[in-house]
Amino acid sequence: MDLKTMFKPRTMAVIGVSLSNERHPANVIYNKNNLRQQVGVFAVNEKGGVYQGEEVYRGISEIPEKMDLAVIATRAETVPAMLADCIRAGAGGAVVISGGFSEVGKKDLQDSLVYMARKAGFPFIGPNCIGIYSPPSVDTLFIPGERIVRPEPGKVALISQSGGILVDHLIRFWDEGVGLSMAVSIGNKALIREMDLLEYFAHDPDTEVIAFYVEGFGENEGRDFVLAAVRCPKPVIVLKSGKTAGGSRAVSSHTASLAGDYEVFSAVLSQYGLVEARDQAEMLSACEALSCYRKPIEGRMAIITGSGGHGAQAVDACLSRGLTAPPFSESLPSRICFL
Amino acid sequence: MDLKTMFKPRTMAVIGVSLSNERHPANVIYNKNNLRQQVGVFAVNEKGGVYQGEEVYRGISEIPEKMDLAVIATRAETVPAMLADCIRAGAGGAVVISGGFSEVGKKDLQDSLVYMARKAGFPFIGPNCIGIYSPPSVDTLFIPGERIVRPEPGKVALISQSGGILVDHLIRFWDEGVGLSMAVSIGNKALIREMDLLEYFAHDPDTEVIAFYVEGFGENEGRDFVLAAVRCPKPVIVLKSGKTAGGSRAVSSHTASLAGDYEVFSAVLSQYGLVEARDQAEMLSACEALSCYRKPIEGRMAIITGSGGHGAQAVDACLSRGLTAPPFSESLPSRICFL
Repeated sequence: MDLKTMFKPRTMAVIGVSLSNERHPANVIYNKNNLRQQVGVFAVNEKGGVYQGEEVYRGISEIPEKMDLAVIATRAETVPAMLADCIRAGAGGAVVISGGFSEVGKKDLQDSLVYMARKAGFPFIGPNCIGIYSPPSVDTLFIPGERIVRPEPGKVALISQSGGILVDHLIRFWDEGVGLSMAVSIGNKALIREMDLLEYFAHDPDTEVIAFYVEGFGENEGRDFVLAAVRCPKPVIVLKSGKTAGGSRAVSSHTASLAGDYEVFSAVLSQYGLVEARDQAEMLSACEALSCYRKPIEGRMAIITGSGGHGAQAVDACLSRGLTAPPFSESLPSRICFL
Repeated sequence: MDLKTMFKPRTMAVIGVSLSNERHPANVIYNKNNLRQQVGVFAVNEKGGVYQGEEVYRGISEIPEKMDLAVIATRAETVPAMLADCIRAGAGGAVVISGGFSEVGKKDLQDSLVYMARKAGFPFIGPNCIGIYSPPSVDTLFIPGERIVRPEPGKVALISQSGGILVDHLIRFWDEGVGLSMAVSIGNKALIREMDLLEYFAHDPDTEVIAFYVEGFGENEGRDFVLAAVRCPKPVIVLKSGKTAGGSRAVSSHTASLAGDYEVFSAVLSQYGLVEARDQAEMLSACEALSCYRKPIEGRMAIITGSGGHGAQAVDACLSRGLTAPPFSESLPSRICFL
């Protein structure tokens, strides 16, 4: 499936824009993209009408242009019909914001979307996700612009099952000046999964580092993911939730994923040379370091510091992670001091 | 030894104030305390003179008042003479800022200070330290006021072998709004050690949490410290450097301490119910939590979050630290939702 059209859209339909509720996710998405992002935005609501002086189309097929991307933010039971409309109208792909699928036990409804999309070769992200941030084209994360910061364009692609974690990382990236090529929230990942995005970003010329927040994999999915990551010529970083039995239960109620055996997964990552971030702070550090330094740092660290205590902590940190910090030769400190 | 007079001083002599070098540590200390802290400050330099319109005394014994605290910031070889003067003048105690003692192999010089002080029952902090911050009386940390922030007065006493780590924590405490009762940098801890400060703060009415950054202990010192901490009615938190062989070497060149076997130390802390902070972030969290909640949190956590991903990570964090997060009863979520 071709993801490029929907990930770098020139046109976008927002399906579900409300004429009475300004806080509806579809309205937030319409407003934050219209006039502020490069994508051309069109509002859709089956009742039609006028919103912010612009026509509201009764269906995506009524829009006179072809839509590269459709954002669907309507009630769960209406989503299959909306998706069918998108396919019929020849849209490039869809982001399904709507929740109310397998995460609340309605796997049948979710499967109907997958069946329809597969049959048509039509890509969609979600459901139960906050969508994509692809500068400078589009930003479907339905948080009002004044309540969120956006990192500058850069080299890291960030893929997250959790929208909350994605937003949290955007703030951290912005804070530390780490740039993003694209951010994707995949939610229940009914159709498009980590594997597909790994494949896409492996070939994306703007991306040099690929970072995943993973809650869980289906059967064999984890193995396939690791093998694909090993083949990927770009560094792949993974942060995993559901490391404990209770965490797995929380994951299941969140995105209906099976967390699997974390110890095994972690050991496999290490064995295959993938980067595991143990928490969000490590995720940020790994993304920043690998988007600047592509060659592995093999060890033999020298630490230069104005504080002896920080020096001791830095040596501890190196050695406990398998790097070495050899002692200086006797003559070296005096040569440094007397320069 | 009575530490209270030097820790809550009404008068302070700064020995070593330079008439030609404004960046001398003694000048920085004189300036940041004079007029800005409650303590009355007097400058001392054996050459005498006038500094900032105030008399510079040729020796501490020439000051007409009794000094509660003397700060010594002169060349290492002059420190024994300065300390003898302080004892003779009946000062309450000294902070020895000067370096150039056992951390550069001059243990004899350092031992001479200890011998002199012990004989006179005279307490001193250091040498090779940045001293004490005791709001609202005194602040001997020789960093110009405009280059450092100070946490608000509060319940945590912070004791650090490393001045750099102490300053770093002050910034973090300030950032997170965690208050300090007092901060002490003990440097080479020739005389006053962790044990003495544990004893002091155990009885200090302003302090409710006692936090240590430790680089290493002398023989049996670690054991005595742990046993004293167990007897202490206030929570004791320990962050340790020199966890690895290389870190120990770095510690030795920093404050001439023996880092010892970290695994053993860590296991002992855990066995005796002391709080080990694994890094500076945990140190901050532990200080903040324990200065608000004195009763131990035994487990059975409920996590309330707007983001499923953060919920999953929080459950993982609880379970991997021995807390439980039991599933809600079937009826509970609906009762919460419908309230």
